Amino acid sequence: MSVERIRLETLRHKVMTAEQAASFIQNGMVVGSSGFTKAGDSKVVLPAFAERAKKESIKITLMTGASLGHDTDGKLAEAGALSKRMPFQVDRTLRNKINAGEVLFIDQHLSESAELLHNENLPPVDIAIIEVAYIDRDGSIVPTTSVGNSVTFAGLAKQVILEINTAVPEEVYGIHDIYQAENYPHRNVIPIVAPWNKIGRKTIPLDPSKVIGIVFTDITDSPADIAAPDAKTSSIARHILEFFENEVKLGHLTDRLLPIQAGIGKVANAVLMGFKDSNFYDLTMFSEVLQDSTFDLIDSGKLSFASASSITVSKDCYHRVFDNLQRYRDKFVLRPQNISNTPGLIRRLGVIAINTAIEFDIYGNVNSTHVSGTKIMNGIGGSGDFARNAYLSIFVTQAASKENAISHVLPMVSHVDHTEHDVDILVTDIGLADLRGLAPRERAQQIINNCVHPDYREELQSYFDRACARGGHTPHLLEEAFSWHLRLGETGTMKK
Amino acid sequence: MSVERIRLETLRHKVMTAEQAASFIQNGMVVGSSGFTKAGDSKVVLPAFAERAKKESIKITLMTGASLGHDTDGKLAEAGALSKRMPFQVDRTLRNKINAGEVLFIDQHLSESAELLHNENLPPVDIAIIEVAYIDRDGSIVPTTSVGNSVTFAGLAKQVILEINTAVPEEVYGIHDIYQAENYPHRNVIPIVAPWNKIGRKTIPLDPSKVIGIVFTDITDSPADIAAPDAKTSSIARHILEFFENEVKLGHLTDRLLPIQAGIGKVANAVLMGFKDSNFYDLTMFSEVLQDSTFDLIDSGKLSFASASSITVSKDCYHRVFDNLQRYRDKFVLRPQNISNTPGLIRRLGVIAINTAIEFDIYGNVNSTHVSGTKIMNGIGGSGDFARNAYLSIFVTQAASKENAISHVLPMVSHVDHTEHDVDILVTDIGLADLRGLAPRERAQQIINNCVHPDYREELQSYFDRACARGGHTPHLLEEAFSWHLRLGETGTMKK
Repeated sequence: MSVERIRLETLRHKVMTAEQAASFIQNGMVVGSSGFTKAGDSKVVLPAFAERAKKESIKITLMTGASLGHDTDGKLAEAGALSKRMPFQVDRTLRNKINAGEVLFIDQHLSESAELLHNENLPPVDIAIIEVAYIDRDGSIVPTTSVGNSVTFAGLAKQVILEINTAVPEEVYGIHDIYQAENYPHRNVIPIVAPWNKIGRKTIPLDPSKVIGIVFTDITDSPADIAAPDAKTSSIARHILEFFENEVKLGHLTDRLLPIQAGIGKVANAVLMGFKDSNFYDLTMFSEVLQDSTFDLIDSGKLSFASASSITVSKDCYHRVFDNLQRYRDKFVLRPQNISNTPGLIRRLGVIAINTAIEFDIYGNVNSTHVSGTKIMNGIGGSGDFARNAYLSIFVTQAASKENAISHVLPMVSHVDHTEHDVDILVTDIGLADLRGLAPRERAQQIINNCVHPDYREELQSYFDRACARGGHTPHLLEEAFSWHLRLGETGTMKK
Repeated sequence: MSVERIRLETLRHKVMTAEQAASFIQNGMVVGSSGFTKAGDSKVVLPAFAERAKKESIKITLMTGASLGHDTDGKLAEAGALSKRMPFQVDRTLRNKINAGEVLFIDQHLSESAELLHNENLPPVDIAIIEVAYIDRDGSIVPTTSVGNSVTFAGLAKQVILEINTAVPEEVYGIHDIYQAENYPHRNVIPIVAPWNKIGRKTIPLDPSKVIGIVFTDITDSPADIAAPDAKTSSIARHILEFFENEVKLGHLTDRLLPIQAGIGKVANAVLMGFKDSNFYDLTMFSEVLQDSTFDLIDSGKLSFASASSITVSKDCYHRVFDNLQRYRDKFVLRPQNISNTPGLIRRLGVIAINTAIEFDIYGNVNSTHVSGTKIMNGIGGSGDFARNAYLSIFVTQAASKENAISHVLPMVSHVDHTEHDVDILVTDIGLADLRGLAPRERAQQIINNCVHPDYREELQSYFDRACARGGHTPHLLEEAFSWHLRLGETGTMKK
């Protein structure tokens, strides 16, 4: 315990155990917790609450920034502690409970949860649980590896529990840019015109009288699993880099490109790593999560600045960054997610958005969330915030998987998260389809020619040809549109 | 002819006939024309081109603001003059050609066409045709009843044809606010923080050396067809007004509400007219089209200011406004559509968006564009620009039509224009479903309880119950999801 991390001395008597803090949470409450893609989440209070829920019948609505680490979502779901969860999750146990109808889940654009709370379009937050590096002398708090929705939770929650994480150096002070737009009807401009602009405070304002408990921890974030690029992700990355190179040749972009957003995962890492040996330079990111590749690109001199809402990296990279903060602190900033992901800034900065799809169809509609239209995987996350407002909206997926029993390019997607109106470029390991300026029938032929796995090309062409024969702006055979999904369910493969 | 409307005298020798001007258009060209929901469109040059195309084999790509009046789209389509059309249309002949695959159509968010042109993500515009009230002494032009994409067309087109419409009074000078954001990577803030802010020029900049022809006309815009509210639209309007009244009671909104956007048509007019006898006051609009109801509300003292990209009104209302411009000129402004519809401003101002759906499904996905998934009606227009970024996103449709042979509330929509993530409130003449804070299964029950026509309620409930029994976050029976659409195709009714 490092009581000097509570610089507002009148709060020092609030220190307690995680169990004591968790005991404040009552059945039916709405709890807002820090945590964004595993970063800066509650390490001990939520797990203590999960333990308590094993014995008591007690359920909460849990809002976070995005996903939690340390299987906390799984523990909560397992204990039956969740009635409703939003806006994102990636946990296998929780996902099963959601798909079984036992936990209600709201799959929300990550920019919007805070807006909805401020506008009272969601029930008010009873208790906030926020991981902090320390409490400043004025009671304001310094977040750790993410900002997420913590500014909103701290501002709106009736009561606040703080987890001071002593594994996070106090020197993180200054890596956050804490700003919130005004409430309606007098909202002003958000004055960011470049990724590196800092426009706010360094600490999150908090009324100390709301603090009901302070808990010390020294548990680090769950590390990101960094898989090395494989043949497919390398191929996808190569298609994207070639596309960028060609855009530069055409004079559409310079070698600096425009600010990049990259979704989490292998493909994004592979694309970013691809920049290392390219001619691109002075790159910037305006994204939601910073991964290992961000810091590799900074080290290689290719990336000048990265803006996001969290840092989710491997254990090695975590130490590289936080043991050498002085080296990186002017190279990145963490913002609230309703700033990092806000539509107007993404449009203003001209972000190039690269996100992962579960499947897409011949007309360019993208499913990011559902397996066979019904079972959720993770959620839309920030992909919609970025894709809808980007300078270029790129979606990637493998052409086929499970020994090619599943095609990820389909006659019709079984769930739409990103509509045909919002998608510019589709990429699989087979190739890239540039849909800009194309009508639906032209898009279909591009996608069939360039993206679908050869095992499925003929059947997809047949579907499209037969649909065209029947006519329509967006030709479909509704009776067959989901036949590939249905065949998979019945036979275990989409192949005839 | 009123040659004094060409105040830059060196341009006066460019006056010619519509036929002469149309002769500049060559096969394969990209033509950008003024015109937004019938307002301020080309009255004579495009029709003259359509005449020419009857005799010659000549096709163009035609971009506009939105739809054209005077059946011009129909005439062009009939003459085989269009190879590609974007971003919107409402013409029956053109629609049939699109659905037959004879004209390629890109159904585009109205905010995005100009962005795509500036970013060179669409082919460059060869010739712009712009209706103007007059040409100013510096060669800049004063638009008429719409701004649309004319600023972009005038700026980027290689050659420009101007139609000076003498039926439009020169006093329209000042009703337009001409502003464009900078090109990337140095785009600044668009400094609008209230609907009434004017931030730009009063005329559209134009390099006079690009002007290849000037044509005089005195043809007024096609009038809007204003249908009186019927029982269904009145019922929808009543549900919405009651909802607003309740939001005020709950303290979420004041009696001034927030800036309103209303799509075109009967329902929007009915909702706006409903404000006349309400307690709401000092209302504002931040919308894309101003209809009769806007000016009725201004006259009644309920509406203080309206911002949009065009004025599309009945003949009576047209004369009321343009014969009395002095009375109205401080009450409204017309902007380029990439300003009126830009995501960041819609979010910043907290717009309440009310748009019309063709159909919606039990999970809140909205189809605005396609009949039975294949045939396009009009297009998405600005509905996505507004819905995705609004403070509140409301979609309306009748519960059933064609003597109830068609249900507009369905197990699954056949085309998705607005995803479950983007829709807050759904309204039919039966009732209103408030989806805020609801998970998919909760939404479904709300929609079944409140919105579906009683003739279809039992079957929709059965679909939902049987889908839930099979499980999933968003329970569906893929083999049945389109059964209502298929039944309609086979038997002429969705009823069993």
